[in-house]
Amino acid sequence: MIKVGIYGATGYMGGEALRVLMTHPDVEIAWATSRSEAQIADYHPNLYGEDIHFIRPEQTTPVDVVFMALPTGVPQELAPKFLKEGAKVIDLGADFRLTDRKVWESVYKKKHKSWSLAMEAVYGIPELHREEIKNARVIANPGCFASAAILGLAPLVKAGLVDTSKLVVDGLSGTAGAGAELARPAHHPEIANNLVPYNVVGHRHTFEAEQELGLLSKKRVHIHFTPVYVPIVRGILDIIHAFPTKKVSRASLMKLYKEFYKDEYFVKVYDLPKEEKASWQYKPYPWVNSVSGTNFAYIGLDYDEKRNRIVIFSVLDSIGKGGAHVGVQNMNLMFGLDETTGLTARGWHPV
Amino acid sequence: MIKVGIYGATGYMGGEALRVLMTHPDVEIAWATSRSEAQIADYHPNLYGEDIHFIRPEQTTPVDVVFMALPTGVPQELAPKFLKEGAKVIDLGADFRLTDRKVWESVYKKKHKSWSLAMEAVYGIPELHREEIKNARVIANPGCFASAAILGLAPLVKAGLVDTSKLVVDGLSGTAGAGAELARPAHHPEIANNLVPYNVVGHRHTFEAEQELGLLSKKRVHIHFTPVYVPIVRGILDIIHAFPTKKVSRASLMKLYKEFYKDEYFVKVYDLPKEEKASWQYKPYPWVNSVSGTNFAYIGLDYDEKRNRIVIFSVLDSIGKGGAHVGVQNMNLMFGLDETTGLTARGWHPV
Amino acid sequence: MIKVGIYGATGYMGGEALRVLMTHPDVEIAWATSRSEAQIADYHPNLYGEDIHFIRPEQTTPVDVVFMALPTGVPQELAPKFLKEGAKVIDLGADFRLTDRKVWESVYKKKHKSWSLAMEAVYGIPELHREEIKNARVIANPGCFASAAILGLAPLVKAGLVDTSKLVVDGLSGTAGAGAELARPAHHPEIANNLVPYNVVGHRHTFEAEQELGLLSKKRVHIHFTPVYVPIVRGILDIIHAFPTKKVSRASLMKLYKEFYKDEYFVKVYDLPKEEKASWQYKPYPWVNSVSGTNFAYIGLDYDEKRNRIVIFSVLDSIGKGGAHVGVQNMNLMFGLDETTGLTARGWHPV
Amino acid sequence: MIKVGIYGATGYMGGEALRVLMTHPDVEIAWATSRSEAQIADYHPNLYGEDIHFIRPEQTTPVDVVFMALPTGVPQELAPKFLKEGAKVIDLGADFRLTDRKVWESVYKKKHKSWSLAMEAVYGIPELHREEIKNARVIANPGCFASAAILGLAPLVKAGLVDTSKLVVDGLSGTAGAGAELARPAHHPEIANNLVPYNVVGHRHTFEAEQELGLLSKKRVHIHFTPVYVPIVRGILDIIHAFPTKKVSRASLMKLYKEFYKDEYFVKVYDLPKEEKASWQYKPYPWVNSVSGTNFAYIGLDYDEKRNRIVIFSVLDSIGKGGAHVGVQNMNLMFGLDETTGLTARGWHPV
Repeated sequence: MIKVGIYGATGYMGGEALRVLMTHPDVEIAWATSRSEAQIADYHPNLYGEDIHFIRPEQTTPVDVVFMALPTGVPQELAPKFLKEGAKVIDLGADFRLTDRKVWESVYKKKHKSWSLAMEAVYGIPELHREEIKNARVIANPGCFASAAILGLAPLVKAGLVDTSKLVVDGLSGTAGAGAELARPAHHPEIANNLVPYNVVGHRHTFEAEQELGLLSKKRVHIHFTPVYVPIVRGILDIIHAFPTKKVSRASLMKLYKEFYKDEYFVKVYDLPKEEKASWQYKPYPWVNSVSGTNFAYIGLDYDEKRNRIVIFSVLDSIGKGGAHVGVQNMNLMFGLDETTGLTARGWHPV
Repeated sequence: MIKVGIYGATGYMGGEALRVLMTHPDVEIAWATSRSEAQIADYHPNLYGEDIHFIRPEQTTPVDVVFMALPTGVPQELAPKFLKEGAKVIDLGADFRLTDRKVWESVYKKKHKSWSLAMEAVYGIPELHREEIKNARVIANPGCFASAAILGLAPLVKAGLVDTSKLVVDGLSGTAGAGAELARPAHHPEIANNLVPYNVVGHRHTFEAEQELGLLSKKRVHIHFTPVYVPIVRGILDIIHAFPTKKVSRASLMKLYKEFYKDEYFVKVYDLPKEEKASWQYKPYPWVNSVSGTNFAYIGLDYDEKRNRIVIFSVLDSIGKGGAHVGVQNMNLMFGLDETTGLTARGWHPV
Repeated sequence: MIKVGIYGATGYMGGEALRVLMTHPDVEIAWATSRSEAQIADYHPNLYGEDIHFIRPEQTTPVDVVFMALPTGVPQELAPKFLKEGAKVIDLGADFRLTDRKVWESVYKKKHKSWSLAMEAVYGIPELHREEIKNARVIANPGCFASAAILGLAPLVKAGLVDTSKLVVDGLSGTAGAGAELARPAHHPEIANNLVPYNVVGHRHTFEAEQELGLLSKKRVHIHFTPVYVPIVRGILDIIHAFPTKKVSRASLMKLYKEFYKDEYFVKVYDLPKEEKASWQYKPYPWVNSVSGTNFAYIGLDYDEKRNRIVIFSVLDSIGKGGAHVGVQNMNLMFGLDETTGLTARGWHPV
Repeated sequence: MIKVGIYGATGYMGGEALRVLMTHPDVEIAWATSRSEAQIADYHPNLYGEDIHFIRPEQTTPVDVVFMALPTGVPQELAPKFLKEGAKVIDLGADFRLTDRKVWESVYKKKHKSWSLAMEAVYGIPELHREEIKNARVIANPGCFASAAILGLAPLVKAGLVDTSKLVVDGLSGTAGAGAELARPAHHPEIANNLVPYNVVGHRHTFEAEQELGLLSKKRVHIHFTPVYVPIVRGILDIIHAFPTKKVSRASLMKLYKEFYKDEYFVKVYDLPKEEKASWQYKPYPWVNSVSGTNFAYIGLDYDEKRNRIVIFSVLDSIGKGGAHVGVQNMNLMFGLDETTGLTARGWHPV
């Protein structure tokens, strides 16, 4: 059994890690921390009656792996201690995601305190870094918008089919992505019938996506990224536009994507027939809530022949495949388990 | 392995049965029917990529148990054939729920065609009929509102503490309860910011609840039931009011309920401290979405000493503990399995 | 022109007063206060571009009437100054609603500092207190749940047709009723798919409703009131149950209600045919969002002959007929204007 | 008084025309048609109690102007008769929007039966065609997505600042835009927590937007348009991306837009300070629900200097400024009234 600690278990990300790890057959939850005295059901009423109790942060004991769901800046302070104790670290936050220190410090507006760990950390997208993840001590779990953009664009960018200076990504996020902390744009009366664009220039996830897609391309990659909060709870839809520089078709793109992801269990290329019939015409593209609560991502696409534009729809759950679940997938790889262990549950319908 | 057939798998109830049974360790899904040619993901996009294919209703083969998710009147026509083949039948609909033929025919406005099966059928609330369910051939799976009302009132009615002629139940239902068929009150522009009372006199589930609670009481039971559609997707909240005829207190009621459900895995009596602190003051009563997607029911309560009224909050998922999941719980009992097999997954937070 | 001041214009109630008064033909808005430096559109983006600027609370000048949208306890401190300056006061809050000091102080958990004003104030439901309102200096604008309950029950209680000790009211409230201040149960990820009962014993509005209905009855009135937040933004639905002590029918009740409200412009007794046809069967009862943004209340009802229970549906907007709009109606009466001035706009469809 | 007929008053667009025209000071509603026998409140419960009654389509009488809210193809059959009677026609649908017959017939997949009227009709965006509208007999009221895109892009395209072959528009639409007819993607259980891309190649509004923006540019205009249903009721947010070919800045763009719209009452260039403070950081861009129920459009923008991209946010209500309200604005112009008559009501907050 892998002994797991969850550092920061009261928020949505930590709570989701807890929920998934609770039923993981090879895991024993050693502890989950909270700074408050409240019971677990005060934070996560879905778990009422489960025999789980928070400990204080200062009461942690040595474990095999620590999941961190913490504010930016904290993991870089805590990780060295746990690594010294022999644990591996999976940071669900942003501390170790970028490989360029100047960029990190300018994006996150603070000095980095453990840059060598950032250099050591592996960016936790198994579809791109599986082998490195197997051998990693520190995982930088990817940002949710970035995960969707990277998975959605990787085949295209790697194949060199598009103008990488003009990749347009509109990122629609449910409010779970905004976190458990109260905030104006997540106040129900404001958002329930609203759409709230924010940080539309230079959002933090832009830099991760550019970094990772840059590894697949010989040319400079520009992600023109615009996030918008929408009144759903779970889920990210990245709507991605790319301008081909070579001849493509809907069919050729489908083939490319299916080939690229043919061995991937969790990434499904969504290829339902594009019929005219009214009731089903909405189904040729993936629906964001189909993958809520899971480690699956669906990718669909289309091509406008007349205007020569590719559009890609990449959906995942910001605390699922874009968060805690992919963290568990990474853990599985790090500990030599079957990658899918504990993660095969499908989503609900309806949600 | 139990060979299972799902008759009517395109709706929400049948789809949920499919989702749960797919991962049940002792079940093999022999078939799932649809009258349409569409793929499974056309109906249930959460299952895209699963190796499941619909068959036509006329292509069914003998199985051990058939789940029926069908319009009222159809199960009573189909059940005899499957029973003759040796299968057991779990009807997720209303055909076999009432024990008084006159009441059934007046409530459902049609002649019943297999009344002997209605007489044979066991009402599928394990907390009240566990032993009979174990030996049943036909299960009448309970209505969602009725399940919540019965579980919420059973301890009180059995203990003889309240005026059973004045049990008031306001039933708030998500739109999944209205089904997959398009309907005005489930049209998003109409319901998204709305509350829609309907069938407020003589709703069908009233009669089930009165029948079942009547078995626990020496007095006539009147459920004054008022259903309202609310803009959530999954879940039922029954708000139940009862006027005590004997001395009670919040504490004594909690004790009564905990005792009543002490051996029940799926019914949780919700007893968080009732503090004054602003941020948590909303938690002493169960939240409906805490049990979405699961076979759990939460029951909370309070007592107004000054005005002598008990209020009970009973929550469940209309296609979970109030539908397909409890159907699987009944199947487990019928086939001698551990009752909880395949049903232990907890809900999400947030949802 | 009536010179109006709005004290506390950044919240939802104050903002709604502002919106309605802005276009009132006989009103000049002298000032609206805010403690912050922000522009009006920072709080009320619907008013972007309007020539309205907040002043600081200490910058108020004499006016004819002050609307107060403030935390409990503040109006009782501020009102004397404005009254001395010759203004009338319309308190949109709870400071002056109760006539029993002991009850007020126990309900609101503080000493009252201007009890003589509470004694002088008129409870602002024009349908019950029109003549007193015309001559009032201070209006205690009613609570939203209480307004719906009082309007819904007044005809029945006055007619002496029901057991007044067992009036059951389930109050479903949109999140606008929770106010602009951030709070857990109004956090979108928590409430978007949820139903949150709160203060289910002794909610403050209970006492107002009992007080006002008590004036219409010879018997003690008990309102068994249970509030629940639901994921709509605007609107209150009070579901009211009453047990008749005399013979009634749906038709006789409709007649009673229509007679009671026959001269009322803003209270509509909702009497659409109760047909069987599927698509319209949901319409015999009023929809809460039909009156959003307005000063209208709709009241519908039904009667369960078999079980002898009346059910009443009373809907209004908590910051409309249950708040700022009725405040303006009261102002119209106080200043000798046609009661409907500035208030005749109907709601939207869809909302 | 202008005598107005509304042909097709049971849907959302016709109902909104009715609501606005009801209170228009210079309008007398002569008739509103419905094919059904139902009362007006059966369709539009917000209007319960108003003295308005539907007539059958065959009962129309001569009027000054007819608003048509009808399926594509019907207005081209009906308009000639009303024009012959001396009426003007405002088509809220798509029959007369395109000036290229081949494009129209290929987009709408039918033969056009009154092409001379399409040639005569004026495209009803007053900000671009005010003088022609004043003299028009037939108005082709614009599509909602197209309105938002045209208003959002006109200043930029006219100024020749951007690459017009790569204008990317993601159109997010509330479900009111899908109409009153029941449809899968507007079924609450499907859409409530979902985002549904549809017609992502060659959506009909694309062609209008290209046609109108083409009039402002010397170069070919390509709108790369992708519509998505989102779970709000009213409102369109067009997220628009453009790549500058000349030097720009946020400030220079704001200046350009303010200058372009300086005489427009209904188009507000949204220019709130872009501060760092957490609680307000979401406000520099317009919110879609700020203009719900109104004839206002808000346009906001930003510029990514590092990657050289302009992003524009254009919001309006699909049945307001993107539908029935702008139709009334056009009527005002056609009849020599002040353009704003009957249309000055601001939106609600919250909604």
